[in-house]
Amino acid sequence: MSDTPLKNISTDHLFLRAARGEQVERPPVWLMRQAGRILPQYRALRANFPDFKAFVKTPEAAAEATIQPVDELGVDAAIIFSDILVVPEAMGLDYKMVESVGPRFPTVITGATDVKGLRSGQDAAASLEYVFNALRVTKKALNGRVPLIGFAGAPWTIFAYMLEGGGSKTFSKARRMLYADPALSHQLLEKITTTTIAYLKGQIAAGADLLQLFDSWAGELPPAHYREFAVPYLQRICEALPEVPKTVFAKGAWFALEDLGEMSCQVVGLDWNTPPAFARARVGADKVLQGNLDPCTLYAQPEVIREATLEMLRQFGPKHIANLGHGVYPDTPLEGVRTFVNTVKGL
Amino acid sequence: MSDTPLKNISTDHLFLRAARGEQVERPPVWLMRQAGRILPQYRALRANFPDFKAFVKTPEAAAEATIQPVDELGVDAAIIFSDILVVPEAMGLDYKMVESVGPRFPTVITGATDVKGLRSGQDAAASLEYVFNALRVTKKALNGRVPLIGFAGAPWTIFAYMLEGGGSKTFSKARRMLYADPALSHQLLEKITTTTIAYLKGQIAAGADLLQLFDSWAGELPPAHYREFAVPYLQRICEALPEVPKTVFAKGAWFALEDLGEMSCQVVGLDWNTPPAFARARVGADKVLQGNLDPCTLYAQPEVIREATLEMLRQFGPKHIANLGHGVYPDTPLEGVRTFVNTVKGL
Repeated sequence: MSDTPLKNISTDHLFLRAARGEQVERPPVWLMRQAGRILPQYRALRANFPDFKAFVKTPEAAAEATIQPVDELGVDAAIIFSDILVVPEAMGLDYKMVESVGPRFPTVITGATDVKGLRSGQDAAASLEYVFNALRVTKKALNGRVPLIGFAGAPWTIFAYMLEGGGSKTFSKARRMLYADPALSHQLLEKITTTTIAYLKGQIAAGADLLQLFDSWAGELPPAHYREFAVPYLQRICEALPEVPKTVFAKGAWFALEDLGEMSCQVVGLDWNTPPAFARARVGADKVLQGNLDPCTLYAQPEVIREATLEMLRQFGPKHIANLGHGVYPDTPLEGVRTFVNTVKGL
Repeated sequence: MSDTPLKNISTDHLFLRAARGEQVERPPVWLMRQAGRILPQYRALRANFPDFKAFVKTPEAAAEATIQPVDELGVDAAIIFSDILVVPEAMGLDYKMVESVGPRFPTVITGATDVKGLRSGQDAAASLEYVFNALRVTKKALNGRVPLIGFAGAPWTIFAYMLEGGGSKTFSKARRMLYADPALSHQLLEKITTTTIAYLKGQIAAGADLLQLFDSWAGELPPAHYREFAVPYLQRICEALPEVPKTVFAKGAWFALEDLGEMSCQVVGLDWNTPPAFARARVGADKVLQGNLDPCTLYAQPEVIREATLEMLRQFGPKHIANLGHGVYPDTPLEGVRTFVNTVKGL
């Protein structure tokens, strides 16, 4: 790394003021998965790497992908190009990204010996230096233009991948373990949590201005299990990272909004099913809400997108960061994305 | 069909009294997917049919699969062994059931010409005589022991399969059409609805005592779309079938419980995410609620299953039909299923 001093992001940046819950002139806007296939320049960059993981592990390439949507779309934040599955990999479970299928873990966790064999905490996070390097390269290249978001998967979601070996229709292997061996489940969640904390501390040290936790499979758990196996670990992570604002996006966890309202995070992400007023009534007045336009809206005609975006902004009111309710889908027309971003920015 | 008069189910049967919202001595109990792989005798029967569809289309085999859980588990209702995808097939979209993958439609709906080409209403339902035969054979063999549940997919869920060609992580093709061409979407939903009504009328004529509509992908829609593209068609179907009680199970549609409360159905099914008190407050006092134990509970030790089942029964209180919050998973231990059923019946 060069020793040239970085122009740091101003703490007065619209996005950071909004994330802290301050009154702002308009909601900031970005899109989950904005660094990705929606952009032609991403597809060109991606073509240089036959292997997705080689791409993720090349800091200059990851930095370039991270910055592309800032240049192309004018979004108010960059999010580091990476994958939540680097954490299980760092803990000792290798995965393959299978084109048009998704991630696959050849080895999964089946019992106590497997859990015991996993690396955790700083020991595991040490192998994620390539992400920290990508953050440093990005930070330098951004030169203070917009804040840089770091992220990790939430412990329950990482646990689910480690048990299932990939996505699943029912997540019954992961959920089965919560019933069949709750003590071992907690041991594994504990190891994921300490690793995630070490990993996110590394991201902050490397320049992340805000952190987002993705609990992609939150909606698979019954409320009592979410309270027992997800909430305490999310809370531990949030408490361990007081330096930056934190966003928790627990997809499908409408039933846990009260818990999310009490969490030591500043921002709560919402999926496209959750009416803003329903969420606000449950998380309370303090939290900033992020979301939640249906990503499929962006396939519609520009007038429809514009009207839906304005309606969403009206429904949220203040303390809002505009985003979709899920990652933008790879085949979304770029014009639809632009209409969304520009509608928010034109407010 | 033989002309021997059937012993019909008594309208006083516990299950039918409960479904009508009458006060009952204990909640009746059955399991979604109870006719299936959890039973050794099902697996033996299934082995005679290399092709799943040949199995479904053989009335005697379907009847045998339907009755097996009544004999083996002592559940309070039988549900006809079939598949929701017989409706798109009858409308002209053939599907294949791919072992351990799920259904696949080689041809999907891509535009107005495809929609126009689909059969609908009685014209389509006429080809489902094999289901009606299966109901008649089952009804005769049941000889009034327990009521027989007929079923169909909800229009939005069938629409989703017709556009996606199978299951999907995001259902973005089906949801895209709702935004990109709402008029054509309504045309297709209309055709599915008239077919479903004709099909369910046929099921009633063949002996179905209660009907359940499965809206498996309800949770994928934003609330406004669920209200526009799902609720009116469900309501049309319910209104068209006043002869028997009807259950609507809209998985993931927690945000539409008020709409379901106003629907012309007697029973509302709940998934395992939805706390009974949350649902009751929204559907009102009249509806019977069905559900909603997490199917993964049945992997636990018997004491855990018993306690979880009793706790669920306590939370529901009266006007309740006990069931899981999803279809029972194929690898569930039979002892777990028995513990669940017997705990409810022992009340």
